[in-house]
Amino acid sequence: MNVPDSRNVICTVDVVLLCLKAGSLHVALLRRDHNPYAGVLALPGGFVRPELDQNTSDAAVRMLREKAGLESPYLEQLATFSGQARDPRGWSVSIAYYALVPPDLLDLTAQPDVTLVPVDVPRALPFDHREIIAAAVERVRSKSTYSSLPVYLCGERFTLPQLQTVYESLLGESLNKVSFRRKMDELDILEPIQGEMETGRANRPAQYYRLKAGYRDQLSLCNRGLSSS
Amino acid sequence: MNVPDSRNVICTVDVVLLCLKAGSLHVALLRRDHNPYAGVLALPGGFVRPELDQNTSDAAVRMLREKAGLESPYLEQLATFSGQARDPRGWSVSIAYYALVPPDLLDLTAQPDVTLVPVDVPRALPFDHREIIAAAVERVRSKSTYSSLPVYLCGERFTLPQLQTVYESLLGESLNKVSFRRKMDELDILEPIQGEMETGRANRPAQYYRLKAGYRDQLSLCNRGLSSS
Repeated sequence: MNVPDSRNVICTVDVVLLCLKAGSLHVALLRRDHNPYAGVLALPGGFVRPELDQNTSDAAVRMLREKAGLESPYLEQLATFSGQARDPRGWSVSIAYYALVPPDLLDLTAQPDVTLVPVDVPRALPFDHREIIAAAVERVRSKSTYSSLPVYLCGERFTLPQLQTVYESLLGESLNKVSFRRKMDELDILEPIQGEMETGRANRPAQYYRLKAGYRDQLSLCNRGLSSS
Repeated sequence: MNVPDSRNVICTVDVVLLCLKAGSLHVALLRRDHNPYAGVLALPGGFVRPELDQNTSDAAVRMLREKAGLESPYLEQLATFSGQARDPRGWSVSIAYYALVPPDLLDLTAQPDVTLVPVDVPRALPFDHREIIAAAVERVRSKSTYSSLPVYLCGERFTLPQLQTVYESLLGESLNKVSFRRKMDELDILEPIQGEMETGRANRPAQYYRLKAGYRDQLSLCNRGLSSS
């Protein structure tokens, strides 16, 4: 069958890997090992490989494994970026994904090639990677208002004050403690870890929580936003 | 430069064209004029053509023009579907878009090839078109709770009771008239058309409204959902 034009489209996958560092959202970049832009920091990504990948989501999982040495607890398709201008090799599509990981999963001593840069400090990047990162950050911030998404940026266990700080970092505003806890109750996704308390601080020890088992692979949504705006 | 694997990926665009007919959401299907699935009803779509299309969004606009003879007032990227199994020609990606059109734009006498089918009546479709339609319907319904999206399903002018009926059709529930009008005030996207009233009905004549000029190409979001659930 005749599919001539389509054969001239380059098909790639890029992953925006996000984590919190010092209370602000960072994206993981890698130095490219081949042209175009060899040696330049860019999003982890590469060609879709039909003989290896069942689908583009599979390809994204492979990129993270091969390039950042990790498996992300949260990975979602973001959008597809396309056109003549974005890649010097020719007309291309990049199916972009975003991943959220807790800080301890991105152990930079084990992944010396990965560089974390703050998402809110603009910098030049190859291709349209700056635009892709901006779209991912907007998606994460907008979903944070209504869902359990930020929990994927925490480690396996966290106190409610720690979790509130994560939501506040993403939303860029302070949240009321009482209404934050009410929203978390409404989401009904957390469970206390019996016998595990945060100690060694001046305040009363805080209970450690974790995601309930049924929610580790899916988002939970609130009816109303957390944000006051 | 070496991009061998990527050349084996077929790159297509499909469009889920939605409108309201008799108060329920319908999708436009066309009979395919070539193999695979020649003669079978499917979503309008086709290969990305690098020599014609600036990007995939351009390709979607072209599909709608060539295959359904129209320009949609609202067109948004939905998601990308991919893999070995979805197209008998080989490993493929389909960048799917959805479009919302008012009923009068889809004049079936002018587009005799287009068939409208209700989205809530399951039917067998080629490729993964059933899955693509389901994703589009879910997106539209979920956005309807928080945004001006349903306005694009109305004609150029509409009364508030007509608009409320459109929201209710999408959300699948009755809305309170007072709180619906409060949300519309909050969105602040409508303006009365001076001197145009709906007449000829038993009730008091209703004012006709239209989208304000600044909102004709963009969505407006409410802080809180319309839906009571």
